[in-house]
Amino acid sequence: MKIHDFDQAIVLAGPQESRTNQLSPAYNNMVGPFGGVTAATLLKAVMTHSEAVGDPVALTVNYIGAITASDIIIKPRLIKQNRSNAHWCIDASAEGEAILSATLVLANRRETWNSTEIPCPQAPPLEQLSSIPEEQLMEWAKRYDMRFVKGNLFEEPVDDGGPTSESLAWIADKPYRKLDFLSLTAMCDSFFPRLFIRERTFAPIGTVSLTIHFHASKADLESLPSAWLLAHARAGKYSQGYFDQTGELWSQDGHLLATTSQMVYYKY
Amino acid sequence: MKIHDFDQAIVLAGPQESRTNQLSPAYNNMVGPFGGVTAATLLKAVMTHSEAVGDPVALTVNYIGAITASDIIIKPRLIKQNRSNAHWCIDASAEGEAILSATLVLANRRETWNSTEIPCPQAPPLEQLSSIPEEQLMEWAKRYDMRFVKGNLFEEPVDDGGPTSESLAWIADKPYRKLDFLSLTAMCDSFFPRLFIRERTFAPIGTVSLTIHFHASKADLESLPSAWLLAHARAGKYSQGYFDQTGELWSQDGHLLATTSQMVYYKY
Repeated sequence: MKIHDFDQAIVLAGPQESRTNQLSPAYNNMVGPFGGVTAATLLKAVMTHSEAVGDPVALTVNYIGAITASDIIIKPRLIKQNRSNAHWCIDASAEGEAILSATLVLANRRETWNSTEIPCPQAPPLEQLSSIPEEQLMEWAKRYDMRFVKGNLFEEPVDDGGPTSESLAWIADKPYRKLDFLSLTAMCDSFFPRLFIRERTFAPIGTVSLTIHFHASKADLESLPSAWLLAHARAGKYSQGYFDQTGELWSQDGHLLATTSQMVYYKY
Repeated sequence: MKIHDFDQAIVLAGPQESRTNQLSPAYNNMVGPFGGVTAATLLKAVMTHSEAVGDPVALTVNYIGAITASDIIIKPRLIKQNRSNAHWCIDASAEGEAILSATLVLANRRETWNSTEIPCPQAPPLEQLSSIPEEQLMEWAKRYDMRFVKGNLFEEPVDDGGPTSESLAWIADKPYRKLDFLSLTAMCDSFFPRLFIRERTFAPIGTVSLTIHFHASKADLESLPSAWLLAHARAGKYSQGYFDQTGELWSQDGHLLATTSQMVYYKY
């Protein structure tokens, strides 16, 4: 059986203190690899470490520079194991240069009072929507089935009360793959740059810092009815070379799985 | 002239590679110091470093454990200086134990097309609102003048369509202090825990990871009409021991200065 492109892209070799990941052309971005897969690879370097205990709760990945090498070296380091959580930091380099710096909190989830405050957005069932045609997409985006409800970059903008970068779309790996923390992490960076949607421009952009907060346990992810996610995003402010984008990812049965925000460099 | 309590709390001593900060009782929290001042102190350790260039764009602080010592040692480290931005990491310890781990992106802001997409919340002028009485507050919160429009923890909850943790309040340092990146950082953590507002309980909580995205330059902050901020926050989801809270901080004249999110441990 052929290994899934996503699993191929996040293969790690070498000792757990210093992993090597060969970048997969299947997830190429404009320059270098898709940042979502890079973030997933860093997460995997910790989660496959023998000292790792618990599920991811908070991940921040800082993108230091464009990655033009063919592989990267990832060094996960446990800073402190507490009773209920653990703090890790992860440094990555390519050809001897620092290219990524990340921090991760893992935690043992346990039963508590639970509640979701923000409402799951209304969306038509994914079967009623059509996928974005592959030929319009960069390589990494061809690895996803994206079905837009709102904010489709490849359709005429709908004027419903002022310019906005808001988007809402169903998304899943293509071919289909069961959801885990790794693919969820990658999809947290699958939102097209808000500047592109808002201004219909392909101005130069690059994520400088990505944060993901996880709202599900491993058991929650394993019991989902499908791997389809409803992904909702918007921008806050574009100002003097940097804008933020914020998103939520919901399961097909309406559970909030992750919230994410990032700061993006732009030239426009 | 007496130094402001906030400036006193963030005093750094020693060489720039290894700073010592004496924790100020004026900003005591339930256990240890107020995390907002701790975050500001880490930021200051970078911004006063001779190699620091640019304004803060993205800061993530991971709180590893309760700080019970009287002072902390802060080690800022430049990972890479790029042409337009710089990546730093900051480790802090107390009595030889790791207690904080942070990453910071600094950038040279420059003129671009700018736009704010999210609307500034409507609020009555601060002169029409009353401050929370000091006697109800923990030590750190007495250092702020907070005037609630919505979500006041010390008033009966208003039932306007289901339980919510949303809050909206004016906030400024008390006594008044001109706003800079350091005080803005501290105020990004000044939102009372959403669980307290939502459930009217003082269950045990603790921030594990705080992220701040800055949307203003130093010149922007210096030209503000006042240091008053309009602070808006809500929770996304409370689940199995961790909840998120997300906030925006606006200037008195309606400019978005920072967006912030954090993951908080809870036992309830």
